[in-house]
Amino acid sequence: MAMLVGASRRLARRSDLVGPIRWGLIRSISGGGGFREERDTFGPIRVPADKLWGAQTQRSLQNFDIGGHSERMPEPIIRAFGVIKKCAAKVNMDYGLDPTIAHAIMQAAQEVADGKLNDHFPLVIWQTGSGTQSNMNANEVIANRAAEILGHKRGQKFVHPNDHVNRSQSSNDTFPTVMHIAAATEINSRLIPSLKTLHDSLHSKSVEFKDIIKIGRTHTQDATPLTLGQEFSGYTTQVKYGIERVVCTLPRMYQLAQGGTAVGTGLNTKKGFDVKIANAVAEETNLPFVTAENKFEALAAHDAFVETSGALKTVSASLMKIANDIRFLGSGPRCGLGELILPENEPGSSIMPGKVNPTQCEALTMVCAQVMGNDVAITVSGSNGHFELNVFKPVIASALLRSVRLLADASASFEKNCVRGIQANHARISKLLNESLMLVTALNPKIGYDKAAAVAKKAHKEGTTLKEAALNLGVLTEEEFHQHVLPEKMIGPVEV
Amino acid sequence: MAMLVGASRRLARRSDLVGPIRWGLIRSISGGGGFREERDTFGPIRVPADKLWGAQTQRSLQNFDIGGHSERMPEPIIRAFGVIKKCAAKVNMDYGLDPTIAHAIMQAAQEVADGKLNDHFPLVIWQTGSGTQSNMNANEVIANRAAEILGHKRGQKFVHPNDHVNRSQSSNDTFPTVMHIAAATEINSRLIPSLKTLHDSLHSKSVEFKDIIKIGRTHTQDATPLTLGQEFSGYTTQVKYGIERVVCTLPRMYQLAQGGTAVGTGLNTKKGFDVKIANAVAEETNLPFVTAENKFEALAAHDAFVETSGALKTVSASLMKIANDIRFLGSGPRCGLGELILPENEPGSSIMPGKVNPTQCEALTMVCAQVMGNDVAITVSGSNGHFELNVFKPVIASALLRSVRLLADASASFEKNCVRGIQANHARISKLLNESLMLVTALNPKIGYDKAAAVAKKAHKEGTTLKEAALNLGVLTEEEFHQHVLPEKMIGPVEV
Amino acid sequence: MAMLVGASRRLARRSDLVGPIRWGLIRSISGGGGFREERDTFGPIRVPADKLWGAQTQRSLQNFDIGGHSERMPEPIIRAFGVIKKCAAKVNMDYGLDPTIAHAIMQAAQEVADGKLNDHFPLVIWQTGSGTQSNMNANEVIANRAAEILGHKRGQKFVHPNDHVNRSQSSNDTFPTVMHIAAATEINSRLIPSLKTLHDSLHSKSVEFKDIIKIGRTHTQDATPLTLGQEFSGYTTQVKYGIERVVCTLPRMYQLAQGGTAVGTGLNTKKGFDVKIANAVAEETNLPFVTAENKFEALAAHDAFVETSGALKTVSASLMKIANDIRFLGSGPRCGLGELILPENEPGSSIMPGKVNPTQCEALTMVCAQVMGNDVAITVSGSNGHFELNVFKPVIASALLRSVRLLADASASFEKNCVRGIQANHARISKLLNESLMLVTALNPKIGYDKAAAVAKKAHKEGTTLKEAALNLGVLTEEEFHQHVLPEKMIGPVEV
Amino acid sequence: MAMLVGASRRLARRSDLVGPIRWGLIRSISGGGGFREERDTFGPIRVPADKLWGAQTQRSLQNFDIGGHSERMPEPIIRAFGVIKKCAAKVNMDYGLDPTIAHAIMQAAQEVADGKLNDHFPLVIWQTGSGTQSNMNANEVIANRAAEILGHKRGQKFVHPNDHVNRSQSSNDTFPTVMHIAAATEINSRLIPSLKTLHDSLHSKSVEFKDIIKIGRTHTQDATPLTLGQEFSGYTTQVKYGIERVVCTLPRMYQLAQGGTAVGTGLNTKKGFDVKIANAVAEETNLPFVTAENKFEALAAHDAFVETSGALKTVSASLMKIANDIRFLGSGPRCGLGELILPENEPGSSIMPGKVNPTQCEALTMVCAQVMGNDVAITVSGSNGHFELNVFKPVIASALLRSVRLLADASASFEKNCVRGIQANHARISKLLNESLMLVTALNPKIGYDKAAAVAKKAHKEGTTLKEAALNLGVLTEEEFHQHVLPEKMIGPVEV
Repeated sequence: MAMLVGASRRLARRSDLVGPIRWGLIRSISGGGGFREERDTFGPIRVPADKLWGAQTQRSLQNFDIGGHSERMPEPIIRAFGVIKKCAAKVNMDYGLDPTIAHAIMQAAQEVADGKLNDHFPLVIWQTGSGTQSNMNANEVIANRAAEILGHKRGQKFVHPNDHVNRSQSSNDTFPTVMHIAAATEINSRLIPSLKTLHDSLHSKSVEFKDIIKIGRTHTQDATPLTLGQEFSGYTTQVKYGIERVVCTLPRMYQLAQGGTAVGTGLNTKKGFDVKIANAVAEETNLPFVTAENKFEALAAHDAFVETSGALKTVSASLMKIANDIRFLGSGPRCGLGELILPENEPGSSIMPGKVNPTQCEALTMVCAQVMGNDVAITVSGSNGHFELNVFKPVIASALLRSVRLLADASASFEKNCVRGIQANHARISKLLNESLMLVTALNPKIGYDKAAAVAKKAHKEGTTLKEAALNLGVLTEEEFHQHVLPEKMIGPVEV
Repeated sequence: MAMLVGASRRLARRSDLVGPIRWGLIRSISGGGGFREERDTFGPIRVPADKLWGAQTQRSLQNFDIGGHSERMPEPIIRAFGVIKKCAAKVNMDYGLDPTIAHAIMQAAQEVADGKLNDHFPLVIWQTGSGTQSNMNANEVIANRAAEILGHKRGQKFVHPNDHVNRSQSSNDTFPTVMHIAAATEINSRLIPSLKTLHDSLHSKSVEFKDIIKIGRTHTQDATPLTLGQEFSGYTTQVKYGIERVVCTLPRMYQLAQGGTAVGTGLNTKKGFDVKIANAVAEETNLPFVTAENKFEALAAHDAFVETSGALKTVSASLMKIANDIRFLGSGPRCGLGELILPENEPGSSIMPGKVNPTQCEALTMVCAQVMGNDVAITVSGSNGHFELNVFKPVIASALLRSVRLLADASASFEKNCVRGIQANHARISKLLNESLMLVTALNPKIGYDKAAAVAKKAHKEGTTLKEAALNLGVLTEEEFHQHVLPEKMIGPVEV
Repeated sequence: MAMLVGASRRLARRSDLVGPIRWGLIRSISGGGGFREERDTFGPIRVPADKLWGAQTQRSLQNFDIGGHSERMPEPIIRAFGVIKKCAAKVNMDYGLDPTIAHAIMQAAQEVADGKLNDHFPLVIWQTGSGTQSNMNANEVIANRAAEILGHKRGQKFVHPNDHVNRSQSSNDTFPTVMHIAAATEINSRLIPSLKTLHDSLHSKSVEFKDIIKIGRTHTQDATPLTLGQEFSGYTTQVKYGIERVVCTLPRMYQLAQGGTAVGTGLNTKKGFDVKIANAVAEETNLPFVTAENKFEALAAHDAFVETSGALKTVSASLMKIANDIRFLGSGPRCGLGELILPENEPGSSIMPGKVNPTQCEALTMVCAQVMGNDVAITVSGSNGHFELNVFKPVIASALLRSVRLLADASASFEKNCVRGIQANHARISKLLNESLMLVTALNPKIGYDKAAAVAKKAHKEGTTLKEAALNLGVLTEEEFHQHVLPEKMIGPVEV
Repeated sequence: MAMLVGASRRLARRSDLVGPIRWGLIRSISGGGGFREERDTFGPIRVPADKLWGAQTQRSLQNFDIGGHSERMPEPIIRAFGVIKKCAAKVNMDYGLDPTIAHAIMQAAQEVADGKLNDHFPLVIWQTGSGTQSNMNANEVIANRAAEILGHKRGQKFVHPNDHVNRSQSSNDTFPTVMHIAAATEINSRLIPSLKTLHDSLHSKSVEFKDIIKIGRTHTQDATPLTLGQEFSGYTTQVKYGIERVVCTLPRMYQLAQGGTAVGTGLNTKKGFDVKIANAVAEETNLPFVTAENKFEALAAHDAFVETSGALKTVSASLMKIANDIRFLGSGPRCGLGELILPENEPGSSIMPGKVNPTQCEALTMVCAQVMGNDVAITVSGSNGHFELNVFKPVIASALLRSVRLLADASASFEKNCVRGIQANHARISKLLNESLMLVTALNPKIGYDKAAAVAKKAHKEGTTLKEAALNLGVLTEEEFHQHVLPEKMIGPVEV
């Protein structure tokens, strides 16, 4: 409800109640350059002189001392504010906003979009659930910066945070719009490319390993053989589908709430504003944003985030499986499975050559666990909206953006520092395959199930190879054994 | 690994070690008709004479005494076994299965598909993680039943559970196939129709209520007005998108693992078997099933279930929000919001007329909470596959099927017993709207923000209406007031 | 709010609106013995003649057609209703309830507590969130049964469900009381004993294996040695602490809401009723139940369940780890780690001797995943109470009871069918230990780090043993090697 | 496995493979003061000259480019490293560590404990799952700083990170020790005090409001009355039990792994080291830390964190309920429940006086959602340990510490900026109570249920008060009405 206004901001004239403790905090925030006075409907308040924010940001800073610096609103949200405020100024010119002011706003907003003014966005995630205070933070910073561009002083409101920067907008439609812009941008610019690179790398390995026959494992127990390439093709497919899953959710992420204003009706906007601003954002970001077909849904629920988070946790489940397999297949060097040789990126142990800890798998699986947790946070938050507004917006946005960023970065790191350099341990793979009793299956057609089973049983009991057991039992010759026990015939269906 | 088999089932000749305690259990299961002997590679074992299952089912029953009757494998899984076993027999005829036996299998399998043999599927979810024992349960029941159809006795294996019923199959590809058939069928036959009915009912209400202007609420606080129809249009859109979300996941659910056999290679099948059986299932179910493009992924991961569960929990988040709104809007009769009149289905209180407990909302929101929980169970399970096989199949299948069924039934119940009968409390809605101070916004253009705010402030302080305050302050006449304070002008953007 | 009444049940005289479809349902429920008429404040309704329930149960059955038979309220809840209703009748005699009626109620309630009347409790979990309908189910069944005991007919209300059976109670305090009784009883009678047995069995193994030195594994990679007994002592400690964790939560579970009636004030009870009934329940169950110190908390929140569920999911995390270790340590027979030999309970593969699938580990880990999911369902439900009542009671109760039962049964099954029979594969353990390069650490004090590392490096590169490499490099003699490389000196701190 | 070492760090002599892109990153990290060379067993590597960290930290920085600055290891972990390294140096003196070096280490470690060297800990959470790299970061920083204190240069290893700072320690026991120190400290210094303050504030309100009788609400519907003080006593009890729940988990949090070294055996330590260092930590922190009774459990599992997180999410469920109630009870100003007046901390709306958005409730409930999500992340991570080491340590630590900090800060903010200033809206409470139909219950004893119900029904139908309806029906006089309808008699049990 930051909308609806501009004038009458002097309604309340409460004095600034900041006590001595808070002053310590504020002083530490201020770079030492003193303070200036800003004001809102609550009255005047002192703000660090070297900061562009205004009264409402300052109040939030004081009222929500939760978590400290590392809990600040994520940068993609700040940048998306830059995008939407620029687009709003542009579209508002069509509806009468003074072009001089509009262009100053656009320039200031571009600086926000470029991340140049990040230091002026001090607010944490844990504020009002509509994100109003961050919207006002953006309005105040852009207004002060635009005023400076036009040669005016901070705090004098030559460019007004509400009347000009926030024109035709409410926090209630702006913040969800910013959420969607930030999420769609991060997914497209970070996550999809990282997953694609990982996919391609896994696919290359699948091709590279296509002729390496190895023992299969089901229930973690020895099973019939397959190629290492086939095994990696499973991973490749998981990542491929993962990308599809995330992409499938984007149509609803591309819908923007902007134009719904306070409750979804679009009060205080002009007809067509919503479509125009969605077009402007699409142009600005080069992503296919459209105006939301129902603004009431777009403010009151964030199902699009719950859905996308569901896709992200599916990707996490896939990556957890892949990373687990790779670390187990690379376990050893002597007492594990040892089929894969993982790249050595750092000292695993200062005394033990060959001890390559699968640290990239570890970082990735930790990320997957956090993404699964974030999914629950987002689901709980998404389910708790009331009436015309869901007021869990900042936690939904920050948890999803964190999941996206971590999955993207960890996938990239895993690809670069692990997958790309994986080598097959040919000798070990071959040894295990040949020691396996599972190949006995191939003898069934030749000597019958009973005799085949007897061979396997004998080998198992006596700890010998199948061949030794078979020859010992006299059920076939060495030549016949080699003729029939051909793992390369066991890795696909039979030609009809 | 139930595949690979047929002969040599007498390999181990361990005596049946069932002790006195277990006999009590078994006797209680048997309907009193005594026992017959069945056998598998572990040797002979006594099975209730009136039951069609065989040795492996019996062993599972004794080894997995977990949770009791209510933890049995869900019925849609049992029925899907009927479908796949029928299709397998049909396709196996093309590859040489004796048509007499094949047709008996098909007939027996159809009985399973029709739910007629449910009593012969006693196994619980908490068994081997590949679902092997349930696959063997299906094989044994169908084999014995088919043998009976052909005039043979149970237990004599005239129709063989492995050689005939399970031909060209492994549990490792059959169980995931059954999971996909069951889930896709339940989604299409139960969930989507229920959600569509709920959608249509909400949409009808949205139309019915299109002219009822009411106060909006953001942050649970009074806000600018909207129509009750607009409010319901938000719910309608949520359900509409919910259906889209579930449907979006189906392409991966329609992929069948059958033909991958033990580790995904398709060992012991003939080329083309996988495509043929997928076609047969598609024909049988009238759903667009296809063979999985990568069988390794299809056995080793159940990302398709993790994904679909993600869509289901998104639907849950939506329904939780809708049901919460409806119960709050219907709260009262005197001391709540009271804008909706909910249908009265049972005594809410035996003394208090008008106390209509929103019990349908309660049942639905409880279901939503369970679906969110199941999503975590499925995600954890999906992430924990190892190598060529994920061995959390039964819990994944049962949790998803439970979520589907509960969401479907609860949505249907909510629609029929609540949404359909919701009435607007016109008097209450109108009273609240008129008492609201939020309409003052409409006076801004006429008397300016400062005076408008003064009016609102005075009304708030003195507990009067806006009109009283305005007239009292002398800022405009009664006529002017009515001319400007028109809620019906506040429910949409302004014409340009 | 089922309280507050008795008379005026004929307030509404709505005809029974059950249509043709519902009659089908009802007929199928009735055993064919026809119907009798029961009535509540909504008017008359037909009930199967062979069932003891009354009008309110019948309405719930019709209004909440969600999930079918397997979704019925869990049996421990039904039995706990028997306990509380018996105790209530007993205590109510002190406050004037006719002893003849009280004793009949007590006898009928005992039958419910003994599980003899389970068939008369048809309601599902997904009903009103206060559990009112199940409370009325209990009241109706006990009233009708008590009336029969006294020679009266069903439906005539000689013993009245509200006035007599529900006397001094409301659903709002009764259902939470029943939840606490059921949970505490199941935890004490099922879970703790199962966990204790598992603990003892793991401890026995720890002692049995105390002298078996094996390679340690960190990051899934070879590390310094420990004994197999030490490894199992870690599991033992996890289970020991798990029991402590659950027990720690019981003080809050032993607090009973009974006496709070509708909103926690105790309206319509006499002073002292709450203490007396808690004492009666304590006596009846032999568990230290007390009256809740704050009844408002006891109705409006179910934090005790959220807390206990948190302990259960901690136990799940422990058991998941233990079961995973055991299946990996038992992997093989040829191509895995193979240090443990797991008992063979059923055919793992019909052709492959030695393929022992770790099915008990699989069942247990699946249970753990479901318990983690249920924890989220319970947390979401627990957080969503409003004002004087949390209306997610049935889902909270059923999810927790399911978690308790599954953990108890799966732990018992795992202990009996797996842990108890685990054997160490001495040869394999010894072979891996001796092949390991990690023992080189022991040479540091003798030949210095640089030479020790050179030995390890050479062995790793050339695939030889440490001894071979050491002798080959000439850094020490065979005798010296054996003198220093003593794994048994590496399994504890050095004496000072 | 960072233990076991010191010498032979020059084993591998791989050249530094950092390419041009990485140099950009590194340059941006360096404050522009150039670089120095550090080295580890991998060989030399360039490190920013103004930073105290060494080669292993630098490698981690390059290999784990995940999430950026805001994903750094939480400060309490860094500080706890200071504590443990100080204590280790102290105890190591008893076992022969040179006192000069020991005291320099202690001084440097104290600086770390005081947070003075935070800038020298650049590593992110998403690194090796044992936290080895952060342990080495601590070792390197403290070694370089201690060397400086003793007049030596950075990088020359006069004080050695492994031989001196990490003496008798492995990352595998040090990191869990640090986790426990950090968590126990944060819980005791932040969370418990915040919860206690919140508890006291709620209790004060409960006392302040003890005579204000208000309508109760169950199922969100009007119910029998209670006092506002009783309602707040429920919240008070929830927080009181929440504190108990967290405290209950501490005995296992106070157990320290230190002394277990690489796999739990204590290899390379002296007997008694574990007890001495736990005592030193206890003394240093003034918290009752003890050595873990089983070091294998302490390294391989983090059940203590899973358990404590379970208690935290229980607190979250409580706070979510309380904050929801308060925002609903404070909803309005005209169209909500309006029973509470919440403090106004910032402009809720610039035009609407009286619109006080419950922003503190919003921040708190968002925190609760995140804590619930973190609990899942921690549970998944805790369940995924393998063999002798759980390698999800950093995510477990960071998620728990974040939950603790956010709950602590948000509770404090909620108390200070909301609860403390809550006022009862007497007029509104009284109006609703008197309008309520629920008070009719009080007439039952006087006029009988049937007439009482008729009164209520008439009032409901005609929208009048109970009194009007009663007088109109002529069932009692005005005097009699006032004599019997006494809400103050309805707020507790009847005296016997």
